[in-house]
Amino acid sequence: MAILNLFVPKDRKFFPLFEASTLNLVEISNVFYEMLKCNDVQKRKEMTRTIEDLEHVGDKLSHSIFNELNLSFITPFDREDIHALTSAIDNVVDNIHGAAKRIDIYKVEEIDESMVKLGELIRMGSEELHKAVTLLKNNKKTAEISACCVKINTIENHADDVFDMTIGRLFEVEKDAIKLIKIKEILSTMETATDMCEDAANVIQSIIIKHA
Amino acid sequence: MAILNLFVPKDRKFFPLFEASTLNLVEISNVFYEMLKCNDVQKRKEMTRTIEDLEHVGDKLSHSIFNELNLSFITPFDREDIHALTSAIDNVVDNIHGAAKRIDIYKVEEIDESMVKLGELIRMGSEELHKAVTLLKNNKKTAEISACCVKINTIENHADDVFDMTIGRLFEVEKDAIKLIKIKEILSTMETATDMCEDAANVIQSIIIKHA
Amino acid sequence: MAILNLFVPKDRKFFPLFEASTLNLVEISNVFYEMLKCNDVQKRKEMTRTIEDLEHVGDKLSHSIFNELNLSFITPFDREDIHALTSAIDNVVDNIHGAAKRIDIYKVEEIDESMVKLGELIRMGSEELHKAVTLLKNNKKTAEISACCVKINTIENHADDVFDMTIGRLFEVEKDAIKLIKIKEILSTMETATDMCEDAANVIQSIIIKHA
Repeated sequence: MAILNLFVPKDRKFFPLFEASTLNLVEISNVFYEMLKCNDVQKRKEMTRTIEDLEHVGDKLSHSIFNELNLSFITPFDREDIHALTSAIDNVVDNIHGAAKRIDIYKVEEIDESMVKLGELIRMGSEELHKAVTLLKNNKKTAEISACCVKINTIENHADDVFDMTIGRLFEVEKDAIKLIKIKEILSTMETATDMCEDAANVIQSIIIKHA
Repeated sequence: MAILNLFVPKDRKFFPLFEASTLNLVEISNVFYEMLKCNDVQKRKEMTRTIEDLEHVGDKLSHSIFNELNLSFITPFDREDIHALTSAIDNVVDNIHGAAKRIDIYKVEEIDESMVKLGELIRMGSEELHKAVTLLKNNKKTAEISACCVKINTIENHADDVFDMTIGRLFEVEKDAIKLIKIKEILSTMETATDMCEDAANVIQSIIIKHA
Repeated sequence: MAILNLFVPKDRKFFPLFEASTLNLVEISNVFYEMLKCNDVQKRKEMTRTIEDLEHVGDKLSHSIFNELNLSFITPFDREDIHALTSAIDNVVDNIHGAAKRIDIYKVEEIDESMVKLGELIRMGSEELHKAVTLLKNNKKTAEISACCVKINTIENHADDVFDMTIGRLFEVEKDAIKLIKIKEILSTMETATDMCEDAANVIQSIIIKHA
C-alpha cells in the first residue's frame, strides 16, 4: 500500500502534464488548419501569432515535465520514455509552428490545396495522439491505445504520399525556383510534423509493450 | 552456468536480428548501386520499388528488435546501445531509400558520376557494417571489428570529400537553380547515409570498449 | 571517505575534458567571427582550415569523453547527461565548421552584415557555455551557472529573430535563386549552431536540478 501511495502521486503529476501537452498540440493544429483554409493574409498573420503563443505554452509544459523527471525517484513509466514522448510532442509543435512562420515570412499568398490536406492530416494525427495519451493512465485500455497508434501510422503514410506526389508535381510545373524553394520547405516542414507524431506513437507503443 | 544459460538465449534472439538487418542493408545498397549505374529510367523505377520493399523488411526487423528489447530483462549488451545501433542501421536504409525516391520523383535522367561514386562508398560502408555486426557475437574478434569501424570512418571521410568537391563544382557550373536543388538534395541524402553508417560504427566501438 | 576518493578521481577526468572542449569551442567561434569580419577571400580560406583543425581537436576530446564514460563505473553526473552534453558541444562545433566550409565552397565573396551578427551571437553563446562548464565542477555555483544558461537562451532567441528577419528580407530582395540558396543555407547553419548551444545549456540546467 505504501508503495502504491508513492506511485500514485507521480501519476498525478505526469499524466496531467502529458494531457495538457497534447491538448495544447490539438489546439495548435486546429488553429493551423484554420489558417491554411483562410484567404486573408492579415488574419493568417494573427493566427501565426496565436500558434507562437501556444508554442510557448507547450515549451513551458515540456519544461515542467523535464523538471518533474529530474526531481522524481518514481515515474509512471521509464524515464527515457517520458523524455522521448515529451520531446516528440514538442517536435510536432515546433514543426507546425515552423510551417506557419514560413508561410508568414515567405509572404506566401495562395495556400496550395496539398498544404490544406497535410494540415488536415496533422490535425487528425494530433487528435489521435491526445486520445492515446489520455488513455495511457488507464492500463486496461491497451487495445484502444494501440488503435490510435495504428491510425497515426496510417496518417503518416498518407502524408508521405501527399508530400511525394505534390513535390513531384511541383518540380514539373513550377519554373520559378524561389517560389519552389518556399513551397517545398513549407510542405517538408509539415510532413516532418506527421513524422514526429509517428515518433510519439512509437514511444507510446513501446510503453504499452513494457507494461503488458 | 545458470547465468550463462540466461544469457545465451538472448544472444540467439538479438544477434540474428542484427545480422538480418545489416544483410538487408547490404542488399539495399547493392540494388541502389546497380540503379545508379543503370541508364534505363524504367528499370531504375523498378529498382526504386525493390528498395522500398526492402526498406519495409528493414522496418519490420527494427520493430522486432525494439519489441525484443522491451520484453527482455537480459540483453547481450547495453539496452541504449541496442537501441542506438538499430536506429543507426535504420537511418542508413532510410537515407538510401530517400535518395532513390528523389531520383525517381525529381525525374533525374542522367546520373552524375559523383552519385555513382557515393553509391559505391555507401555499398562498401554497408558491407563493413554487416561484417562488424556478424563478428560482434564473438567477443574474441575485437581487433577485426575495430578494423571494420576504422574502414567505415575512412569511407565517411572519403564521401565527405566527394560531396564537398561535387557541391563546389555544381555551384560553379550549374546555372539552372531547380536542377541544382534536385542534384544537391540527392547528393546530400547520400552523404547522410555514410554519416549514419559511421554513427552505427561508433555504437559498435563503444560496445567493444565496454566489453573489453 | 573511501567513496569520496572513488568519486574525486573521476572529477579529475571528466571536468578537464569538458573544459578543454568548450575552450576549443570558444577558440573556434573566435576564429569564425574574425573570418566573418575579414574581406580577404584567401585569408578566409586559411581561417576555414584553422577551424577544420580545431574541429578535429574537438572530435578527439569528445572521443576521450566517450571512452572515459565507457570505462568509468562512477561519473560526476548521470551518464546520459555526460553523453548529451558532449554531443551538444560537438554539434555547436560542427555547425560553425559547416557554415565556414560553405562560405568557402560556395565561393561567397561578400559577407552579409547579418552573418557577422549571427557570428557574434555564436561567439557570445560559446563563451557563456564555457563559463557554465567551468563553474560546473563547483556545486555551490548553481545561481551563476543558471545565469549563463539564461543568457544562452536569450542569445538563441536573438539569433532566431536575426535569422527570421534576414530570411524574410532575402526572399524579398534576392532574385538570383542560386545565390539565395547559398546565403539561406549558411545563415541556417549558423542559426542551428545557436540552437545546439541552447541544447547544451538545457543539459547543464537539468544536471543542476538533479544535484540541487
